[in-house]
Amino acid sequence: MEPFSQKDLLDIKGLSKEQIITILESARHFKSVFTRSMKKLPTLRGKTVVTLFYEASTRTRTSFELAAKRLGADIINISVSTSSVTKGESLIDTVKTLSSYKADYIVMRHKSPMAPHLIARKMPVSVINGGDGNHSHPTQALLDAYTLYEQWNFDINAFQGKNIAIVGDIVHSRVARSNIHCLKKLGANVTVCGPLTLIPREMEKMGVEVTTDLDRILPKLDAINMLRVQFERHSAPDQPIDSLFPSTREYQTLFSLNEKRLRKAKPTLFVLHPGPINRGIEIDDIVADGERSLINTQVTNGVAVRMAVFYLFRPRVENYPETEEDFE
Amino acid sequence: MEPFSQKDLLDIKGLSKEQIITILESARHFKSVFTRSMKKLPTLRGKTVVTLFYEASTRTRTSFELAAKRLGADIINISVSTSSVTKGESLIDTVKTLSSYKADYIVMRHKSPMAPHLIARKMPVSVINGGDGNHSHPTQALLDAYTLYEQWNFDINAFQGKNIAIVGDIVHSRVARSNIHCLKKLGANVTVCGPLTLIPREMEKMGVEVTTDLDRILPKLDAINMLRVQFERHSAPDQPIDSLFPSTREYQTLFSLNEKRLRKAKPTLFVLHPGPINRGIEIDDIVADGERSLINTQVTNGVAVRMAVFYLFRPRVENYPETEEDFE
Amino acid sequence: MEPFSQKDLLDIKGLSKEQIITILESARHFKSVFTRSMKKLPTLRGKTVVTLFYEASTRTRTSFELAAKRLGADIINISVSTSSVTKGESLIDTVKTLSSYKADYIVMRHKSPMAPHLIARKMPVSVINGGDGNHSHPTQALLDAYTLYEQWNFDINAFQGKNIAIVGDIVHSRVARSNIHCLKKLGANVTVCGPLTLIPREMEKMGVEVTTDLDRILPKLDAINMLRVQFERHSAPDQPIDSLFPSTREYQTLFSLNEKRLRKAKPTLFVLHPGPINRGIEIDDIVADGERSLINTQVTNGVAVRMAVFYLFRPRVENYPETEEDFE
Repeated sequence: MEPFSQKDLLDIKGLSKEQIITILESARHFKSVFTRSMKKLPTLRGKTVVTLFYEASTRTRTSFELAAKRLGADIINISVSTSSVTKGESLIDTVKTLSSYKADYIVMRHKSPMAPHLIARKMPVSVINGGDGNHSHPTQALLDAYTLYEQWNFDINAFQGKNIAIVGDIVHSRVARSNIHCLKKLGANVTVCGPLTLIPREMEKMGVEVTTDLDRILPKLDAINMLRVQFERHSAPDQPIDSLFPSTREYQTLFSLNEKRLRKAKPTLFVLHPGPINRGIEIDDIVADGERSLINTQVTNGVAVRMAVFYLFRPRVENYPETEEDFE
Repeated sequence: MEPFSQKDLLDIKGLSKEQIITILESARHFKSVFTRSMKKLPTLRGKTVVTLFYEASTRTRTSFELAAKRLGADIINISVSTSSVTKGESLIDTVKTLSSYKADYIVMRHKSPMAPHLIARKMPVSVINGGDGNHSHPTQALLDAYTLYEQWNFDINAFQGKNIAIVGDIVHSRVARSNIHCLKKLGANVTVCGPLTLIPREMEKMGVEVTTDLDRILPKLDAINMLRVQFERHSAPDQPIDSLFPSTREYQTLFSLNEKRLRKAKPTLFVLHPGPINRGIEIDDIVADGERSLINTQVTNGVAVRMAVFYLFRPRVENYPETEEDFE
Repeated sequence: MEPFSQKDLLDIKGLSKEQIITILESARHFKSVFTRSMKKLPTLRGKTVVTLFYEASTRTRTSFELAAKRLGADIINISVSTSSVTKGESLIDTVKTLSSYKADYIVMRHKSPMAPHLIARKMPVSVINGGDGNHSHPTQALLDAYTLYEQWNFDINAFQGKNIAIVGDIVHSRVARSNIHCLKKLGANVTVCGPLTLIPREMEKMGVEVTTDLDRILPKLDAINMLRVQFERHSAPDQPIDSLFPSTREYQTLFSLNEKRLRKAKPTLFVLHPGPINRGIEIDDIVADGERSLINTQVTNGVAVRMAVFYLFRPRVENYPETEEDFE
């Protein structure tokens, strides 16, 4: 597969259906590599990947780090909360510094929507969006799509007409937005489901069905993506989260995927969750650990998809002349 | 040497005397590698080692990290205190995530005794115990044994009948427990010595002598392992630690290894300490830096022993099919 | 180029003019490597570099880390503020531990002047000073000199008679001290400029001109090095820093390099800044981002200079016998 002509992965909207398919196909190749004993390829040898996280996320950062290491890259992790690189320094000055180090990739998480887009326009480095505010989290959407693609026997046409629901706090979720774009492009019917206070108005313009009634839609679903209730951004597990949220008990009653509720679903339903799980809140143990759950597979596939992303998106090369000289 | 059939290093009790000897022999080989200019072997190339530390320990973590790097592995360090991986997440879910990354080894430190045992049973990954509560710290015991083995000219029979004391806060010490098991298996006579309030009752069942009188036993000893007084877990250096502890002054008077006291020992006595040292508390400068001290050698040997452990304990391979394809 | 016989880079004073030239020439070579697509050399393969930072500095640490990685070394980062390695442990015991790990290089930042000198005398490891209090920051001075050397067509004689000013808080600046030593050795005329309260008396003994009048000297200058106002060590940006400092407004009026002031300078003036920038305080956007600014180039050159330093300074090798055996 040829690398793409665009250098950045900023959001799903900017990808064509063909590009999404290429990423999924490429992830399939990379997964076949790193699930064996010898997990390494020399694809990014001599390249530098910087992870620049303005919000903590061990899970996403680690997945990118493993993907880069398994491709032979050198990694620099910069966690801005524990870092002095940006003392009194603007984002753009920080990124200029990283670019001056001759980094090839910046994997970036930032609380401001579109921050990676701003950087990408100004820099020759490849910018990979690792989550910008509640806007976009493209690699999560791609790994979710890959996980279903794999289950559906690598038949990309299988997405056509499938019914997929995303359940929970839609309004604050970049995972939800990116998933909707990705699944729609692949031809699925997407429904968002949650308390009405947590579903933004623009949803209907995105061409998705909106409902508050999980029990009604469950029997038709082919896949369900249970979003994490992000208690840590709000309050304690036994407290209501904020004025937009119902009580935890009410949320569980209406939206938790438990064993009893799962019995109403098709036996072929696949259950996804971006992790980490609040066991007993949005999902019960027996479902999370059950045979329809793809949660651990998603984690594995995250590394494969991120390897594919590093492979397909490449920095602008003008500044980096290739030479014939052998340095080993 | 062939890798062991068991995949985990959880405690010394689970090892046969023959396995301990194999580890020490293997460490001897690896030490001969990394004490030269070119310190690297390709043994773990393409493998992933995760360090998962629920308690801070730069010293132990760094030793494992160096051992893994010198075997060519990729390393991911997860320090849970500064990490979000486990926000609202159980230990088992965190480890499932790491396992899903296709990690080969998890080096784990946890405050709960037996936490690594729990993990090891459920996962195909190799679990290496880097310290679980006050229960076990097997690599520390193995590096201490290796350090004596090296001094005793790599004669494993030299342990037979040697008199070795472990001095200090026995009750809170995983180092003490693991050392006792290891030295007993190698045939040494082990004595524990400290304030009676800090020696647990089960000691006598473990087949060790118990005493509060360091001066009485010192002349007979072939090796002495001075435990660190862990002030940071209790209170300030000039304060009594807690109700179990005597005053610092009394502790020094009775249990500190100083120059005067050392004169009562055999000239062939070896002095060990797991570090970091409280100079002037459990050990004096002139002893810590003297010719009978093996403290710095222990640090060097820690890397060698951990390389041997990575070499000998291997993850279950069912999930990782080997292929003939060459990826370089 | 042959490695130097001395093992440590502690300060500029300890280097001959010839050694400085060798470092600059070597940096030129390494920059030609890492500005291409394949950035890696095997120079330090099998060697271990430890960064030991007692003061936070993502920028300097990252630059050293990249330099070491691009030479193939293994890196261990120890940030003492977040580390337990030194709990109740002296600097010398910490370094003994690192030395016992068979580290080859320790890159060290410490608040105490001469701390790296103390370590270097006692250890076979190569000690690279990454900043000791207000005393010395030799790699910063070398990268600043390299940056001018490159602009002046790699003509080392071009420094002869050039007028170079260092502007700002001289008294607290290790960058200023190291730059003065380096530029004087290369034959430049050095002027320090700032509020009189921030210029130490010893300056005149160092053979530099002292002035408080930036506007007077500006027209003669060939290069100007604008020091960072270190607000984070003192107080908020809109407050006076401490009794030695004028108000921020007064500082800007007298010492800020803005567009209007720049018009008084030669068109060939080069502007340097060690970063990170306080935009609008010591330097204005239009100057920092303008065509005379070398700020981003300095960052790139920092990696090249540090690669040269690792290449030229080598640990004492007695402890590390070379063998003929092939480990790949």
